[in-house]
Amino acid sequence: MAIDVERDGPVPARRGRPSGPTGSVVARALRMLDAFGPGRPALSLSDLARHAGVPLSTAHRLVAELTGWGALERDETGRYRIGLRMWELGALAPRGHALREIALPFLEDLSHVTRENVQLAVREGGELVFLERLAGSGAVPVLTRVGSRFALTATGVGLVLLAHAAAELQEEVLAAPVDRYSRFTVTDPARLRRMLADVRRDGYSVSDRQVTEDALSVGAPVHGARGRVVAAVSLVVRHGSAAPRALAPLVRTTARGISRALGS
Amino acid sequence: MAIDVERDGPVPARRGRPSGPTGSVVARALRMLDAFGPGRPALSLSDLARHAGVPLSTAHRLVAELTGWGALERDETGRYRIGLRMWELGALAPRGHALREIALPFLEDLSHVTRENVQLAVREGGELVFLERLAGSGAVPVLTRVGSRFALTATGVGLVLLAHAAAELQEEVLAAPVDRYSRFTVTDPARLRRMLADVRRDGYSVSDRQVTEDALSVGAPVHGARGRVVAAVSLVVRHGSAAPRALAPLVRTTARGISRALGS
Repeated sequence: MAIDVERDGPVPARRGRPSGPTGSVVARALRMLDAFGPGRPALSLSDLARHAGVPLSTAHRLVAELTGWGALERDETGRYRIGLRMWELGALAPRGHALREIALPFLEDLSHVTRENVQLAVREGGELVFLERLAGSGAVPVLTRVGSRFALTATGVGLVLLAHAAAELQEEVLAAPVDRYSRFTVTDPARLRRMLADVRRDGYSVSDRQVTEDALSVGAPVHGARGRVVAAVSLVVRHGSAAPRALAPLVRTTARGISRALGS
Repeated sequence: MAIDVERDGPVPARRGRPSGPTGSVVARALRMLDAFGPGRPALSLSDLARHAGVPLSTAHRLVAELTGWGALERDETGRYRIGLRMWELGALAPRGHALREIALPFLEDLSHVTRENVQLAVREGGELVFLERLAGSGAVPVLTRVGSRFALTATGVGLVLLAHAAAELQEEVLAAPVDRYSRFTVTDPARLRRMLADVRRDGYSVSDRQVTEDALSVGAPVHGARGRVVAAVSLVVRHGSAAPRALAPLVRTTARGISRALGS
């Protein structure tokens, strides 16, 4: 499993923010695709033009190219949606579909045993992407959605992924304003730095009500074939129902099982 | 579920065939992505240049743009793979992930009851794409792979999708040479036209050893919210183990369940 890919570059620009008409024509076409997201599955031509920062005529031409290739499809209302061709190619991404397929049996075991929320995420630049979430019966509600992004600084999986990222990326993330989700969210860079050191020392992370005020999350790293941290697993339980120290061995065992299956 | 998308355009050029350095810069960048496939998950810069029909210097610049955006990632060997960003966006494709999620419980029911192969596919231009395949315990081996393409003329799902495509697309497909997979593959356009009429009349398709010589496949159409055929389901059993007429009600019931869940 080749999932030890290089994505340690600079923190990418936030998705979804309109940008000026800069960059090459390829960059503009790709920026149009960035307009789509879990909360924005269908967009009009003028939405796309606005997002890419190009005139309507340019947008029309770029959308025609993207639609012709299959990156976009027109729905019955005339709006555009992500096309099947993106799904086809996306299924080839080693860090998406393939990693999830390998991890799934281990995640299911953890879910069966605990009946709590189990999550799998990878880092993409200065954010994380959730690859899977199994909701335990009666588990605490969580904000996670498969395929959606989240800050690295708040969740159990995020703290693991950030703790094992390159030092420069950690500094970039900590130098930027840290998003707050609850009154327990840690936003002080110095305190976050100490938490990241703890994650590396202890082999697991603890996010105590930092995302929602009733949830505790414990995360552990998944290692790829070359030993690098390529993903993170977490167990999210109701705050007060269990101590992080009691959950850590369960999450770490699951993460090690997945690492072994990846050839670590 | 907005899966009634417009993809009734001309039959697209075969993927994977090298083309000359024609088309816009966006078309060339997209053509590079077409070089990837289930059997070709990792490619070098020169592979990509060759596939897109551009000089190495142009390929270098395009690959840098695609990698910067996240469409490609470099692996530990220096080769390129499909990036996580494609998986993220692909998860938004209504005809991919979302349709599969809705259909999965119905497919699982059919698989549990029959212990045979169950398949789900959609049409993409003049080919089909498999969205799911559940392999029954001890079921006959099939060539299907999720995310891969196949001819519309041979399989049970393909015959259903072709039978319900626009007349112009049917004629384009039948005018082109029809791929042969076994000595039972029907390649005569007149006979295929009669088979498609039977599919529309009977509500199910029969592919009798047309793909592999030991398999019989029976397919049925899935209708979207606006009544159009948006996908097809099939049951693939060992030839001689059951009559198509006996399998058809099972497959049709499953397809109707999915259609109902889609709001048909």
